[in-house]
Amino acid sequence: MTFEIQHTDPNSNARAGKITTDHGVIETPIFMPVGTVASVKAVHFHELKEDIKAQIILGNTYHLYLRPGIDTLERAGGLHKFNGWDKPILTDSGGYQVFSLSGNRKLKEEGATFRSHIDGSKHLFTPENVVDIQRIIGADIIMAFDECTPGTADFAYAKKSMELTHRWLERGLNRFDQTEPKYGYSQTYFPIVQGCVYPELRRQSAEFIASQHREGYAIGGLAVGEPTEIMYEMIEVVNEILPKDKPRYLMGVGTPQNILEAIERGVDMFDCVMPTRNGRNGMLFTSQGIMNMKNEKWKNDFSPLDEFGTSYVDKAYSKAYLRHLFISKEYLALQIASIHNLAFYLWLVGEARSHIQAGDFSSWKRGMVEQLGRRL
Amino acid sequence: MTFEIQHTDPNSNARAGKITTDHGVIETPIFMPVGTVASVKAVHFHELKEDIKAQIILGNTYHLYLRPGIDTLERAGGLHKFNGWDKPILTDSGGYQVFSLSGNRKLKEEGATFRSHIDGSKHLFTPENVVDIQRIIGADIIMAFDECTPGTADFAYAKKSMELTHRWLERGLNRFDQTEPKYGYSQTYFPIVQGCVYPELRRQSAEFIASQHREGYAIGGLAVGEPTEIMYEMIEVVNEILPKDKPRYLMGVGTPQNILEAIERGVDMFDCVMPTRNGRNGMLFTSQGIMNMKNEKWKNDFSPLDEFGTSYVDKAYSKAYLRHLFISKEYLALQIASIHNLAFYLWLVGEARSHIQAGDFSSWKRGMVEQLGRRL
Ligand SMILES: [Zn+2]
Ligand SMILES: [Zn+2]
Repeated sequence: MTFEIQHTDPNSNARAGKITTDHGVIETPIFMPVGTVASVKAVHFHELKEDIKAQIILGNTYHLYLRPGIDTLERAGGLHKFNGWDKPILTDSGGYQVFSLSGNRKLKEEGATFRSHIDGSKHLFTPENVVDIQRIIGADIIMAFDECTPGTADFAYAKKSMELTHRWLERGLNRFDQTEPKYGYSQTYFPIVQGCVYPELRRQSAEFIASQHREGYAIGGLAVGEPTEIMYEMIEVVNEILPKDKPRYLMGVGTPQNILEAIERGVDMFDCVMPTRNGRNGMLFTSQGIMNMKNEKWKNDFSPLDEFGTSYVDKAYSKAYLRHLFISKEYLALQIASIHNLAFYLWLVGEARSHIQAGDFSSWKRGMVEQLGRRL
Repeated sequence: MTFEIQHTDPNSNARAGKITTDHGVIETPIFMPVGTVASVKAVHFHELKEDIKAQIILGNTYHLYLRPGIDTLERAGGLHKFNGWDKPILTDSGGYQVFSLSGNRKLKEEGATFRSHIDGSKHLFTPENVVDIQRIIGADIIMAFDECTPGTADFAYAKKSMELTHRWLERGLNRFDQTEPKYGYSQTYFPIVQGCVYPELRRQSAEFIASQHREGYAIGGLAVGEPTEIMYEMIEVVNEILPKDKPRYLMGVGTPQNILEAIERGVDMFDCVMPTRNGRNGMLFTSQGIMNMKNEKWKNDFSPLDEFGTSYVDKAYSKAYLRHLFISKEYLALQIASIHNLAFYLWLVGEARSHIQAGDFSSWKRGMVEQLGRRL
């Protein structure tokens, strides 16, 4: 994997770049749709490519490990072969899901034991086996196994948790460096900065992580309940330390506004379930603001779903029709909302990129953030 | 609406024809996907057109009347404008749903009172207002309001029910003939033959219905629990009487084998929820037989979903992947199965048409029926 910075914004830390992987190029800043269990919910892969224009998707190691399971993924020749997505894939390490989804989890120096949320079966994730699993999944970008510290952790807990994440990182990197890709294309490994909401810990963590000299770096443990301003401050603290010439991935963030603010602070990569999950609940993000599609006000509004939208659903379906589908609990509602929201997220980061290239990112961002916050 | 018979099979009553409506041509025999509440569940409209190659879809008057409601449909300019489907639409009369879905229904000479299955609100359907509603929906083909006699009805009940349906037909036709289409294109009205499993009643009903001299005729009240052989016998009895130069629509039927047997007996049009409903439960119909996609046997079968399939999902996704999606309860499973099954049904009736044109329908049908019954 290589990263090349193509433009930097004169008035901020925003940058436009290009990541090259064996599965193709990713233009940054980029948003990665979340394909939890080997599928981006309610979206066909050709829609991801052609309508949404996704360049890379994310898979969840925890989910994939449980279903379809590592044996099936290995027999298939990896996740790309299994689901037919031939562009880059990033997998998280499973840590977040172990702590948020699974039952009876226990954190030890060795790793984390947990019970499957599906059948209660007992499992152990370690920094090492999580590398092995992601090798088998065949992710282009493998994430370190970390403890995602709760946003409410006190300093002492956050410090202890960060130090564990650092020790796990060294073990994970050892395993990664001692093993080979399984399917002939290269894989890379991103360490994750933790440190909760404490600038001192974030600084320490960023320095430790940067000292590993890897091809990219992630910022974890944000957007987990802390105030937005604290999140932005942590990004600033961390990005002062992380090397400028490597991609920076802000994990699990966020609203369209969060993404623009983070781009301004030098972040290149994003993922979030918000466009798909909120979409399935009837919330549409548009360049003009947010629409709650279950609202009575759309009942007889036969105008196109989003006249400024870039995906075909925006012209093919009306607001009244989508409202009807949501009220009637039709599957097509979930499909339309997911395509619209993901296409909007991809449009937004593409626009950000264009405005970084044009040199007017910050002024464009100010106007856009104001628009994005409206309730339509 | 016009109907032209293009080919008749030398060895059976099968025929290939062409129905021309103001929303375009329908080549028969044809299968009509069911778009219950203004959407064919889990399928985009461009998929219906381009991948499934549907030529006409069905809407349910009962569902559309309750949601989005007649007021919204009228403001939209009819269902075609509301959901964006610009090819022909046939609507049923709502009778079937009133008797199968709604609560507290009461049958009177005037019509049927019922309570909405959604909010319990009270409504009345009459032969007249069901014409008015379908005028507003803007269906190209409007169905008569009938009592769908239970398959288990005794002769006396079936006779009484049939006679009510006939009286309702005269009232519905009166209303239809005294009213105009609302949106500038023509609409037509199909009477429905009833008579349960009693050849004498079926004959009586077919004669009465044929004497109305309409542009097409439907056969209702079959595939409601009676043995398949009885259903075929009823079709034969009725089709001896219904005029040969008009399209015949067998309502709510059925399996791929049922459809081929009915085509052989001179039926031209079909609708059924089976391809979508069974698809959502993991059952795939293919030219080689039936697949239960939840079966363990597909776990590591990475071959294309259906190597003989005609829709893109058949090549884009593997058996193992679709099984995984079903096991993981992913929406994409429902989408893939619905597209596959509907495309298969449309392929099947298209193939039947080709073989009628080629003159070898019956021998082709025999081999196909044998294949269709296999369990893969
Ligand atoms: Zn712009
Ligand atoms: Zn053939």
